[in-house]
Amino acid sequence: MPRDPNKILLDTIRRLLRREANSHLRKIVNKTHAADLSVVFRSLSLSEQLKLFAMIKDNEQKGILFSELEADTFLEIVAELDLNEIVSILEQMPSDDVADLIGRLPDEKSASILEMMQKEDSDEVEDLLSYGDDTAGGIMNPDYVALREETTAKEAIEAIQKEYADVEMPFYLYAVDEFGKLVGVSSLRQLVVVAPQTPLKNFMATEVISVQTDMDQEEVAKIVARYDILAVPVVDASNRLMGIVTVDDVIDIFRREATEDILKMAGAGEEFVETKSIWRSTKIRLPWLFASCVGGIIAFFIISWFEVNLNRIAYLAAFIPVIMGMGGNIGTQSSTIVVRGLATGRLNVRDFWHVVFKELTIGCILGVVYGTIIGMVAQASYTNIPLGLVVGSAVVCSMSIAALVGSLVPMLFARINIDPAVATGPFVTTSIDIISVFFYFQIATSFLNL
Amino acid sequence: MPRDPNKILLDTIRRLLRREANSHLRKIVNKTHAADLSVVFRSLSLSEQLKLFAMIKDNEQKGILFSELEADTFLEIVAELDLNEIVSILEQMPSDDVADLIGRLPDEKSASILEMMQKEDSDEVEDLLSYGDDTAGGIMNPDYVALREETTAKEAIEAIQKEYADVEMPFYLYAVDEFGKLVGVSSLRQLVVVAPQTPLKNFMATEVISVQTDMDQEEVAKIVARYDILAVPVVDASNRLMGIVTVDDVIDIFRREATEDILKMAGAGEEFVETKSIWRSTKIRLPWLFASCVGGIIAFFIISWFEVNLNRIAYLAAFIPVIMGMGGNIGTQSSTIVVRGLATGRLNVRDFWHVVFKELTIGCILGVVYGTIIGMVAQASYTNIPLGLVVGSAVVCSMSIAALVGSLVPMLFARINIDPAVATGPFVTTSIDIISVFFYFQIATSFLNL
Repeated sequence: MPRDPNKILLDTIRRLLRREANSHLRKIVNKTHAADLSVVFRSLSLSEQLKLFAMIKDNEQKGILFSELEADTFLEIVAELDLNEIVSILEQMPSDDVADLIGRLPDEKSASILEMMQKEDSDEVEDLLSYGDDTAGGIMNPDYVALREETTAKEAIEAIQKEYADVEMPFYLYAVDEFGKLVGVSSLRQLVVVAPQTPLKNFMATEVISVQTDMDQEEVAKIVARYDILAVPVVDASNRLMGIVTVDDVIDIFRREATEDILKMAGAGEEFVETKSIWRSTKIRLPWLFASCVGGIIAFFIISWFEVNLNRIAYLAAFIPVIMGMGGNIGTQSSTIVVRGLATGRLNVRDFWHVVFKELTIGCILGVVYGTIIGMVAQASYTNIPLGLVVGSAVVCSMSIAALVGSLVPMLFARINIDPAVATGPFVTTSIDIISVFFYFQIATSFLNL
Repeated sequence: MPRDPNKILLDTIRRLLRREANSHLRKIVNKTHAADLSVVFRSLSLSEQLKLFAMIKDNEQKGILFSELEADTFLEIVAELDLNEIVSILEQMPSDDVADLIGRLPDEKSASILEMMQKEDSDEVEDLLSYGDDTAGGIMNPDYVALREETTAKEAIEAIQKEYADVEMPFYLYAVDEFGKLVGVSSLRQLVVVAPQTPLKNFMATEVISVQTDMDQEEVAKIVARYDILAVPVVDASNRLMGIVTVDDVIDIFRREATEDILKMAGAGEEFVETKSIWRSTKIRLPWLFASCVGGIIAFFIISWFEVNLNRIAYLAAFIPVIMGMGGNIGTQSSTIVVRGLATGRLNVRDFWHVVFKELTIGCILGVVYGTIIGMVAQASYTNIPLGLVVGSAVVCSMSIAALVGSLVPMLFARINIDPAVATGPFVTTSIDIISVFFYFQIATSFLNL
């Protein structure tokens, strides 16, 4: 890759670490954005990380670094820090990020940290921790600008200057009634455009897009994306405003969900393994290959069983790879298209039969195309038996069934609320392998052994 | 899925369309957010879409609908509309969205539209079209708030009220010098917090994160995500401010790139096919299966060639599926982890050997584990020859090579600036199939035919 400022930064920091040029290091560390430092941290040893971390003067920068670090690195660093220091860093951070970090710590440690934090902050964090991890409540930020609808623009500006000086992203002003119920929304922009004495209710929008605390984070993210808004208010069952989910969190949700889906589809677990040790990566990936192993052994028994009936097995063996390969690949296409279509909302479970029928049709067409090509190769190789017909039919069969299974299984999973992404991994490909081999030998028995 | 407001909306609209209850329809269409309408449009026929579209009163809503529609649907609707109407809708839209839509139209149509648009608007659009589609320049919004650094907070607020009333998302104020060069940034929030007479230069930040017009959109998106900002300024080679890329576009970029990567990995093309016709989907997917077909035929020739030397071929045939399956699956794991790691920035091409070596090690360990299991099954089935040893070694070989190829190829592609996602599709799985089969029979020849 051409320009890579992080590489330059990493090289400089490594050189200075080697030379123990501490005053230089201190200067660089405090001049660099914590998000960039977090990238450099990935390539450093724990002792180097701790050394640099201790050099950061600003607790707010330390907080940003905490949020940006890999889960493992964060735990390692935190294990070496004094509880008082951890608490003073966390107190500078938005409560949603604190809840996120505290959720990762061992129970004992998180309990003592919450005890040491200022009552107001720890209450907020504990409230957030009481919601499900992946729900709107679990990811929302409890700091937002909420004003009564009688507030004038001038008063609102004053409130932002004083009372709400801590709010991370105050671009929306939410109007609430006496019970804290959400009744309207306006923006910072409106505030500077209207006359100072105008009350909020005169310029707020009353049709507010909001989400409930128990909504799944992926749904929340889709809503923010669909309406191109910068934050969505989170309300409880009685429409009381509880927090907001901001667009920066939405980006993280989409990226994380895409990664999880991709890894699940490939049958490589759900969590990122590239930064984990060889041993831990191996342990995560091992069980996902088991399906493939069992499936292969089943295929072996099927072939052995047919072997008794077939003395021309040697001819047939050579075509096993192509039949399995064609079925496997079209099955992967179908399941990937369905899973991603469901994830992006471009396919819907209510179109069940429409989607499955379409995939089956495509599977048949492609099966006929490739069945003809491969059948011709087979016939040309063994002219004395109708091998072309056998192999060609097996390819059509394998590809049609693969497209059917590849689309049917994720649609079924989605319908019964299991994540369809797990349906594209080794489980589906292995079933397709077994079915392909079975039909191949079944067809061969019928045609060649009469 | 439980709550689905779009399903209710779709059912209502369908019922009203059947009944030809036009005044009801008109009310619903104009009350519904255009983003929701676009979802409903997917399930309607062209004539129904046109009927609803004509009912929308507000050109701005029509514009939002234009941006949200599927590419195909948009082209179909536009083909039926009068040029004057298209122009008056486009003139209401942000220039970056207009450029995006115009880029999809046939040349002739886009030329006449640009001619009919107001000079100022069409100039902006033409400027945007001159940048590469996937670069910061091609996706930036040319409407932003740029002020000289001597401007006071009070003057800035007045400018936002008048001159910049059209700017879509004015949360950042950019400070420029007399040549239009970017010298600082501040926010709408700062503006309401400082005293009215304070000049911009006293409260702006001078370290501005910016991107150049030719930066790839994925890089731009990563920068916005890394620094948790709502927009990033785009500058030309001499640091003159040209536009901004806003966070809503960044979300779209991430979602689109994730989808493209997933489809490429599965060897299912790069574009979404689930909304396309069976015929077009088939055409898109056909070539991706060709690699698999050719690979399978090569595997066939390899097996046929060994056949001459091997009379025990029948025993061996039964294990082809399991050896291919294990290799294929671990290869998919490795390549997926590497491709996604590179896409999210958690892996870097400069760690080339580290990554490849790690994958190879994991491949060997997992190969020994599964090789032992499968070898034991093989030995139990054919006790009179050392088949267990042959099959077991072939599994170890196949899985190690698959992990090696699966990580090496995407890393190589990334290094020579080809999208690594194409390296996980049928090409890699097919090569792994061929290599696996070759080594299997080679090992068998050495052990069994001595």
